Amino acid sequence: MGRTPPHPEVPQFDLQRILEALVDPVRRGIVTQLEAAGEDIRCGDFDMQVSKSTATHHFKVLREAGLIRQYYVGTSRMNALRRAEMDEAFPGLLDALTTPQARGVGLAVSTRSTL
Amino acid sequence: MGRTPPHPEVPQFDLQRILEALVDPVRRGIVTQLEAAGEDIRCGDFDMQVSKSTATHHFKVLREAGLIRQYYVGTSRMNALRRAEMDEAFPGLLDALTTPQARGVGLAVSTRSTL
Repeated sequence: MGRTPPHPEVPQFDLQRILEALVDPVRRGIVTQLEAAGEDIRCGDFDMQVSKSTATHHFKVLREAGLIRQYYVGTSRMNALRRAEMDEAFPGLLDALTTPQARGVGLAVSTRSTL
Repeated sequence: MGRTPPHPEVPQFDLQRILEALVDPVRRGIVTQLEAAGEDIRCGDFDMQVSKSTATHHFKVLREAGLIRQYYVGTSRMNALRRAEMDEAFPGLLDALTTPQARGVGLAVSTRSTL
C-alpha cells in the first residue's frame, strides 16, 4: 500500500474543488463511466480520447477532489468512485450528474472507441 | 419588453455551459441567493463583492446558460431563477447545489455586506 497516493477525507471535501473537477467533460466522463460500470476500472480501460499523461492529470484532479479513490493491484492503478462519501458530503450532486439527461451530455466526448 | 435580453429555451440547455456558469463562486452565490429569497431580485440588491461591470458579466453568463431569466421593471433589471425549467432539463442539479452543505460553501464568498 506504500504506493497508494494521498486522498482527502470527507471533512476536507470542498465543493469549489469538486465542481472544478467536474466542469471538465473528460473528467465528468470518467465519473459517469465508473457510475455506469458499478465496479472499479483500471486507468487504461476508460474510454477517453486523451494522451496517457493528460489522463493521469485528470485522474489526479478527481482524486484530489475526493471523487475517486486510486489503489494498485499489481502494476495496475485502479479507480473507485467514492459514491457514498460524496453523497455524504454533497447529497444529490453525483445523482444529478448521472441522470440520463446529464449522462447524455457528459458522455458525448467519450463515446467513441480508442483506435 | 423590447429591452428583454435573449434567453435559451429548455431544449437548448447545455450541461457543459451550465456547469461552467456554476463553477464560479460568485455566480453560484447569485443562484443560492435567488433560491433562498424565493422571489426575484434586482441586480443591485444581491450581496456581491464585485464591481458593477463584473456583476453584469456574471448575470449574463447565468442568463445565457438558462439559469436565470432577466426582465425590466421600469429601470430596474430583475432576475428570476429558472428553477422549474432547470429541474426539467437536469433534475436534481439545483437541489444538490442548494443543500445546506453546498450553500455553506457557495455563500462563503458573499456573506459580508457591501460597504
